Amino acid sequence: MFFKFLPQEFNFFKLFEKQADCAVEAAIYLKKTVSSGSAGEEALGKMRDLEHEGDEASHAIIDQLNKSFITPFDREDIHTLTKELDDITDMINTLLNHIVVYRLCGVNANLVEFACVIENSVQAVACAVKGLRNTKNLAHVSEHCVEVNRLENLGDSMRNRMLGELFEKEKDPITLIKLKEIYQDAETILDICEDVAHVVESILVKQA
Amino acid sequence: MFFKFLPQEFNFFKLFEKQADCAVEAAIYLKKTVSSGSAGEEALGKMRDLEHEGDEASHAIIDQLNKSFITPFDREDIHTLTKELDDITDMINTLLNHIVVYRLCGVNANLVEFACVIENSVQAVACAVKGLRNTKNLAHVSEHCVEVNRLENLGDSMRNRMLGELFEKEKDPITLIKLKEIYQDAETILDICEDVAHVVESILVKQA
Amino acid sequence: MFFKFLPQEFNFFKLFEKQADCAVEAAIYLKKTVSSGSAGEEALGKMRDLEHEGDEASHAIIDQLNKSFITPFDREDIHTLTKELDDITDMINTLLNHIVVYRLCGVNANLVEFACVIENSVQAVACAVKGLRNTKNLAHVSEHCVEVNRLENLGDSMRNRMLGELFEKEKDPITLIKLKEIYQDAETILDICEDVAHVVESILVKQA
Repeated sequence: MFFKFLPQEFNFFKLFEKQADCAVEAAIYLKKTVSSGSAGEEALGKMRDLEHEGDEASHAIIDQLNKSFITPFDREDIHTLTKELDDITDMINTLLNHIVVYRLCGVNANLVEFACVIENSVQAVACAVKGLRNTKNLAHVSEHCVEVNRLENLGDSMRNRMLGELFEKEKDPITLIKLKEIYQDAETILDICEDVAHVVESILVKQA
Repeated sequence: MFFKFLPQEFNFFKLFEKQADCAVEAAIYLKKTVSSGSAGEEALGKMRDLEHEGDEASHAIIDQLNKSFITPFDREDIHTLTKELDDITDMINTLLNHIVVYRLCGVNANLVEFACVIENSVQAVACAVKGLRNTKNLAHVSEHCVEVNRLENLGDSMRNRMLGELFEKEKDPITLIKLKEIYQDAETILDICEDVAHVVESILVKQA
Repeated sequence: MFFKFLPQEFNFFKLFEKQADCAVEAAIYLKKTVSSGSAGEEALGKMRDLEHEGDEASHAIIDQLNKSFITPFDREDIHTLTKELDDITDMINTLLNHIVVYRLCGVNANLVEFACVIENSVQAVACAVKGLRNTKNLAHVSEHCVEVNRLENLGDSMRNRMLGELFEKEKDPITLIKLKEIYQDAETILDICEDVAHVVESILVKQA
């Protein structure tokens, strides 16, 4: 095996940024779609493309990781970070899939509210990931992570409020099943963003 | 970076014990709450506090791990152990949240039965974790792990029995949705306890 | 501690193959059971036995890993591979359990379709795992992994189609709850197979 050295480490950052950008684009597209109140095959196709793009960046990271001797931070953290960035886009895709498969039509104000929080969280994740490149900016990176944690807590209480209302008001069990799952999906996206923030924080501690 | 040596390793045990104690307190509080048949905002507040306390111990462990050169057992095992102890308290919190959000009132005998098994399992987990401190006691640690495994199997068959009865007798789909999720949550807590027992067993093997 | 050297590495392969064979047998048994349209205590017992057998192989792998100094591939990959092979059999068992607990009777054509894809995927996983033993065959291993990925994508679209139809046609919410979970379980098995394929691919890259 032929080990490649330092120049490679710049590629890791570029690939992570590519992955983070895919997640941001997916979050923006999700917000646009739920705000318009109609999602169909076209939306799924667009989302599948974004997932693919992110996947390719992730595969390139793993390939490079397995061939590199020196890495910008712990191999294990690189592995976890790329996997969880991937999970963000996957989960946004899953949520959109559920909206289409369950044939939910019309604008659901709760879902729009969630999509805005999701977009903010994914943007903060992307800022945190991009900040890793410049070790002088680590304080800012930490602030973005704190914001992701705050949004996850917000999402938790949003989901509790929405589920509480849903079980109180919705009398049609099938509609209830659909919305319960969709609110749960939305909250899961914020959980995954928090997981990413935890990895980033752990990388920060080691670089301190 | 300034590496700290042996004295630190005693702190790891103290912090793990703190985390385990939080999980035990959460399990006891869960049993008390479901036995009383009423859970509300106050219960959620109390549980959130316990989750926070456990979280702080977990963060202190990760911080210390990232700064320590010598650790009492594998870094990877420390990481997994603290994450999964955290997951126990989180999942107990999730279960209680579902009870509140779904506005389940009155004493549910199945749930009380589950809460007792959960308390026993979390107590056994705490005994196993505390036993790691003294390498002369490793046989006892192993016994606690076996007990956790036994309780997980018991929980599996309890959930199957309860779900079977539920789908046979409950005609209201909305009640069914709520109870199905809650029995599933309860069983998931026992699964996580088993995951902790597996990590502890893997630590034991390496120390043998 | 007494470290054992090279001869042990042959055992790893034998144990992985044992684990893979258990998963294959479980998948074949699942297909047989859903094709017959009746699953009961006997089926559960048989599945539990297979899960046990696989578990034992997995424990033997972890034991050996903790005692071996030299391993045929990365310790971390061995750990992940055995855990995820275990997850395949566990999840097949979970699916069968749901069928029994929900008292689903009669042949469900969708489920038979899924069980066939699951069997193909688990067979491809087993071929990939067995191929690891002979480093001259790595191209074939890679082909099996590609096949597992293809079947996961197929399963995704199968589940979407089936859930779409279910939510459109099924008016009984309780039947809907049962089938929704079972199709989801089936798809999860294919997801886990894909996770195994990813680990195998990552092992391949490092051996290249």
